[in-house]
Amino acid sequence: MSVDLKARLAQRQQQVDARLEQLLPGGDVGPESVHRAMRHSVFAGGKRIRPVLCLEAAEAVQPTFEGKRVPIDVACALECIHTYSLIHDDLPALDNDDFRRGKPTCHKAFGEAIAILAGDALLTIAFQMIGNSCSQLVAEIAAASGTIDGMIGGQVVDLESEGKHVDAAALEYIHRSKTGALLRTSVRAGAIFAGAAPAALEAVTGYGRHIGLLFQIVDDILDVEGSTATLGKTAGKDAAQLKATYPAVHGMEKSRAMAKQSMDAAIASLKPLGNDNAKWLREIALYLGARRS
Amino acid sequence: MSVDLKARLAQRQQQVDARLEQLLPGGDVGPESVHRAMRHSVFAGGKRIRPVLCLEAAEAVQPTFEGKRVPIDVACALECIHTYSLIHDDLPALDNDDFRRGKPTCHKAFGEAIAILAGDALLTIAFQMIGNSCSQLVAEIAAASGTIDGMIGGQVVDLESEGKHVDAAALEYIHRSKTGALLRTSVRAGAIFAGAAPAALEAVTGYGRHIGLLFQIVDDILDVEGSTATLGKTAGKDAAQLKATYPAVHGMEKSRAMAKQSMDAAIASLKPLGNDNAKWLREIALYLGARRS
Repeated sequence: MSVDLKARLAQRQQQVDARLEQLLPGGDVGPESVHRAMRHSVFAGGKRIRPVLCLEAAEAVQPTFEGKRVPIDVACALECIHTYSLIHDDLPALDNDDFRRGKPTCHKAFGEAIAILAGDALLTIAFQMIGNSCSQLVAEIAAASGTIDGMIGGQVVDLESEGKHVDAAALEYIHRSKTGALLRTSVRAGAIFAGAAPAALEAVTGYGRHIGLLFQIVDDILDVEGSTATLGKTAGKDAAQLKATYPAVHGMEKSRAMAKQSMDAAIASLKPLGNDNAKWLREIALYLGARRS
Repeated sequence: MSVDLKARLAQRQQQVDARLEQLLPGGDVGPESVHRAMRHSVFAGGKRIRPVLCLEAAEAVQPTFEGKRVPIDVACALECIHTYSLIHDDLPALDNDDFRRGKPTCHKAFGEAIAILAGDALLTIAFQMIGNSCSQLVAEIAAASGTIDGMIGGQVVDLESEGKHVDAAALEYIHRSKTGALLRTSVRAGAIFAGAAPAALEAVTGYGRHIGLLFQIVDDILDVEGSTATLGKTAGKDAAQLKATYPAVHGMEKSRAMAKQSMDAAIASLKPLGNDNAKWLREIALYLGARRS
């Protein structure tokens, strides 16, 4: 390798690593274990070939352009996608590798469950990084699927809470993130795609937040009351696994009252849209409150 | 549930299922096993709550608008994200569930490796669906990470080829998809982000295709020749697992010649960019051809 290239690569690698350091969540927000696992694999000493190629290609096609666009977040996203693929490839069910880049593989260091989720989280955050450069819709759906207040975050805390005492705040975090985030974002994504005015977007966001909670409380109630046949999945599994649920934390009666409250609040949120326009969203809230499976 | 809502939901579910049927790859392209696994879980009878919410929210905020925008692909993407999360949650390392929606869970039906990859593929194709609606960059990176000519596709065929005789065409598919697609797209993403002119984009695309191949041939050679210490990963693992590699299919001498050819072709592709602009991409190709780790 030429001395020039060596210096150039070192500078590019530093640029990428510094930005990855900023973009990857640390221990201060969301579930620490999965963030540590993500960082373990991303900062295990890769050569950053993909980000470097991305940055040099951008440079090559616009070398003298004044308002130069540097795709640093896209470059970081490519490294996250590459790293997620390594984490999953190394799993026992796939290549079953114990070492990668001279360090223990992710599942060796953090266990299989966290390794699977850390891989998922890196793929997800990659699209958040790309979306931040070009599309609110992409960034928002990726965030709702990710580790901070998103689906993977809720799943990690849920896993780590099994068999432990869970208080009302932790329960709320788990459900808001694990199920709520994607439901809320489903509503918001439709409205954003349709070009909703700010007041309308705010209305559906409130609705989405409340039905997210409603959905999960009812799920928890049904897991206690339903049968495997009606549910199509193993009933009573939550209790058997000592999962954090609303009936377990708040009791059945209060859980029912909370479900009713969420349903009413969801419907009230729709007011700015007008009765007619909100018809189907309102009916869906009523249905989610009453569902038996 | 009101009769009205029942009809509306049935109509929406049908709309979503029909579009998912079109958007999800079938048995005719790419690796069949992972596509069957994806469809097994997506078409296992979900209620399509997230897509319905997305579609109804769009409807609610633009009820009388003439050129109405229907976020059907975004709605399908949300269902794919939801389904991927169920597949991974059901895995033995996580919730270890055997049934879901009354059918065997994905890993029960297809094995753990394919279930992990089918989940990855659904998360990935979701961003391809969203990207198709709003961002070439997102769609392209998702495609390069996916099952048809993308990273997951190559990984599936690679896994399924272990211990079997692999011909030159299959070897080329595996490597073009597994490693090549993301390398090629790394180069293209930088150029697209930077607003490359068509001729420049074509030049870097050719470059990306050739270094993708170069990278993998050299990886295969190093796996035979390198030591675990230099590589930072287990050396000789490919041969031990009877993996499809260039030295195994073509012999060492021809593999070296192919690497040299790819390197030269990569450098030749850069011509339209001019010598100066292409400097770093050219040096990287030389480096990738000469690397020892």
